[in-house]
Amino acid sequence: LLAGGAWRFDEASSNQDRFGMVMRQHQPDNLEFPFAATNAYITPNERFFVRSHFEVPRITTETWRLKIEGAVQKSLVLSKADLDALPQRDVTATLECAGNGRVFLVPRAKGLLWEGGAVGNAVWTGVPLADVLKLAGLAPEAVDIVLEGADKGAVNDDPKTPGVIQFARSIPRARALKPDVLLATKMNGQPLPLAHGFPVRAVVPGWYGVASIKWLQRIVVLDRLFDGYHQTMDYAIFERKHGLPILTPLTQMQVKAQIARPGRFETVPVGHDYVMHGAAWTGEGTIGKVEVSTDGGRQWSSAELLGEAIPAAWRLWQYRWHTPATSGTVKLMARATDNRGNRQPMERDNDRRTYMINHVMPVEVEVH
Amino acid sequence: LLAGGAWRFDEASSNQDRFGMVMRQHQPDNLEFPFAATNAYITPNERFFVRSHFEVPRITTETWRLKIEGAVQKSLVLSKADLDALPQRDVTATLECAGNGRVFLVPRAKGLLWEGGAVGNAVWTGVPLADVLKLAGLAPEAVDIVLEGADKGAVNDDPKTPGVIQFARSIPRARALKPDVLLATKMNGQPLPLAHGFPVRAVVPGWYGVASIKWLQRIVVLDRLFDGYHQTMDYAIFERKHGLPILTPLTQMQVKAQIARPGRFETVPVGHDYVMHGAAWTGEGTIGKVEVSTDGGRQWSSAELLGEAIPAAWRLWQYRWHTPATSGTVKLMARATDNRGNRQPMERDNDRRTYMINHVMPVEVEVH
Repeated sequence: LLAGGAWRFDEASSNQDRFGMVMRQHQPDNLEFPFAATNAYITPNERFFVRSHFEVPRITTETWRLKIEGAVQKSLVLSKADLDALPQRDVTATLECAGNGRVFLVPRAKGLLWEGGAVGNAVWTGVPLADVLKLAGLAPEAVDIVLEGADKGAVNDDPKTPGVIQFARSIPRARALKPDVLLATKMNGQPLPLAHGFPVRAVVPGWYGVASIKWLQRIVVLDRLFDGYHQTMDYAIFERKHGLPILTPLTQMQVKAQIARPGRFETVPVGHDYVMHGAAWTGEGTIGKVEVSTDGGRQWSSAELLGEAIPAAWRLWQYRWHTPATSGTVKLMARATDNRGNRQPMERDNDRRTYMINHVMPVEVEVH
Repeated sequence: LLAGGAWRFDEASSNQDRFGMVMRQHQPDNLEFPFAATNAYITPNERFFVRSHFEVPRITTETWRLKIEGAVQKSLVLSKADLDALPQRDVTATLECAGNGRVFLVPRAKGLLWEGGAVGNAVWTGVPLADVLKLAGLAPEAVDIVLEGADKGAVNDDPKTPGVIQFARSIPRARALKPDVLLATKMNGQPLPLAHGFPVRAVVPGWYGVASIKWLQRIVVLDRLFDGYHQTMDYAIFERKHGLPILTPLTQMQVKAQIARPGRFETVPVGHDYVMHGAAWTGEGTIGKVEVSTDGGRQWSSAELLGEAIPAAWRLWQYRWHTPATSGTVKLMARATDNRGNRQPMERDNDRRTYMINHVMPVEVEVH
């Protein structure tokens, strides 16, 4: 074997702590972080998953403008300096891609096959959207607030876009007026990275990442619900009303616990204590409980919740597992329940199409 | 930030050296290793990429049989004990999936979107296929040797299979008779893992992994070339003959150098020495040269080749890069040339459909 030789490198180039990002698509780049490598409450910017639908727009702070128009008393055009002059606020929020976990759907889904790393937790700094809407003055008939990004493109597979369109999503008036929805300019104390929406993005805490429009350029206030492409054909699920399946834009993140370690296919030692750990999150609420099963779902034990319960931010959890005394394959599971009583389901609901994937997904490990 | 808390775990459960595998498909599981984490000449079994087309067949050593039939003097049925009684041979060989690097094809391809980790280098132990063919005696009209696995299934998207079929590929007589083609029972000194073809797989050194049929159950000798599903509709490219595009099964791996570190999006220090390193491989030949560019392809410098030149096995290389004195984005490239004069192209050839991806693919890093 020695015939193959070995690299001779120093510390800088052999940093074994560098897990890197996993590429799920190139141009536009879509990247996730290997969730097993999560090592802290805050996800560093360079480890935060990147979801880009179209080419990343390159915007300068100087030329950036935000238009606010539609059902408002007074249309506005704000510069970055205008925004910076308004009162700022910090919000800790977890953003999860609505397709996170999609690789586990069987048969194989069409979209990006995220494993478990299309989620991250950061401190966002910016101006509450409500303050900007107040400046413009919402008209009485205002119902839906459309956020439009500077990113644009065409989807050429069915269902197709009507040519090139801007990426846009809406949030209903009541949600938009809550003070935690930000027009964010900072991520973990740094200016927003290019891939994360520089210079300004929305952050809608508790909602799937798609609502938090990056490279924000326009706010259009509508007098009816916005049935845009990215919340009907894309990022929408079927909800049943009186038995009728009705296409509905997805909104809040679903309650979910993910196991960071042990990772899938990891070998853990026989008859040892192993600290299983991970994170759990829900929509606008907080996590009430995380339970762990080390026997494939027959028995469940409570995990320890760490830190404080912060709405719309994930919560770290851990569980001291005494591994079996004999070798074999073990199915580990974690399931979360939130403070509103929502608990992760054991089975997948196909009405959710390929989104909102929060059923309990076992992690098989080898005890040896 | 401290409100979020922190895990308290011991060494066993915080092993930062554990990179884990990246899941590209679930059921059947298709996994790659994050190539940036490659740290030695030999790829450990648990870090070797897994490519499964259908459900993994579970075979016991006791019931396993290998049939040899078709254009032979005498049909044979061998047991595992029969195979173990024949002279064994070790071969070091790199196996690369024909779709390795597919995530970099634009627009997005349909198949599994491998990044760069669907490649590994192992020592395989087994009986030369030639010895088994000799026992059966090839008929004079024997042209093509079909290897059939115990894995079977149906492809339901176009192009469809004719119902459920076994996975099967062929190698032409001349190649099959060379002594390096093995019916392997060991991988790096261990019994073949289930996912890698237990109890017996073929290993065809220098050829894309698809030729190295796992869970081998039958060898069929044909008097003409085998136009099976997995070498016409799948795993075939267009070759031009007198300008005519002709569908041709892919065979040898194409010459290719991959950069392990720095990884994509890695930040490297300003004005420091950094040991860029990676591996390079080709088909049945050896690597003659690896060149590196740190300026996006304008200038090229020779990297140092480590170890010995072993046909069909990868070769480690390294290059001491003095990083720029100022911050910025740098495009790193590596390109290999083999001992037969084949050099990696700079551009993608679309006749290769979504296979044989060996054009130079830059790694962008941040110098800071």
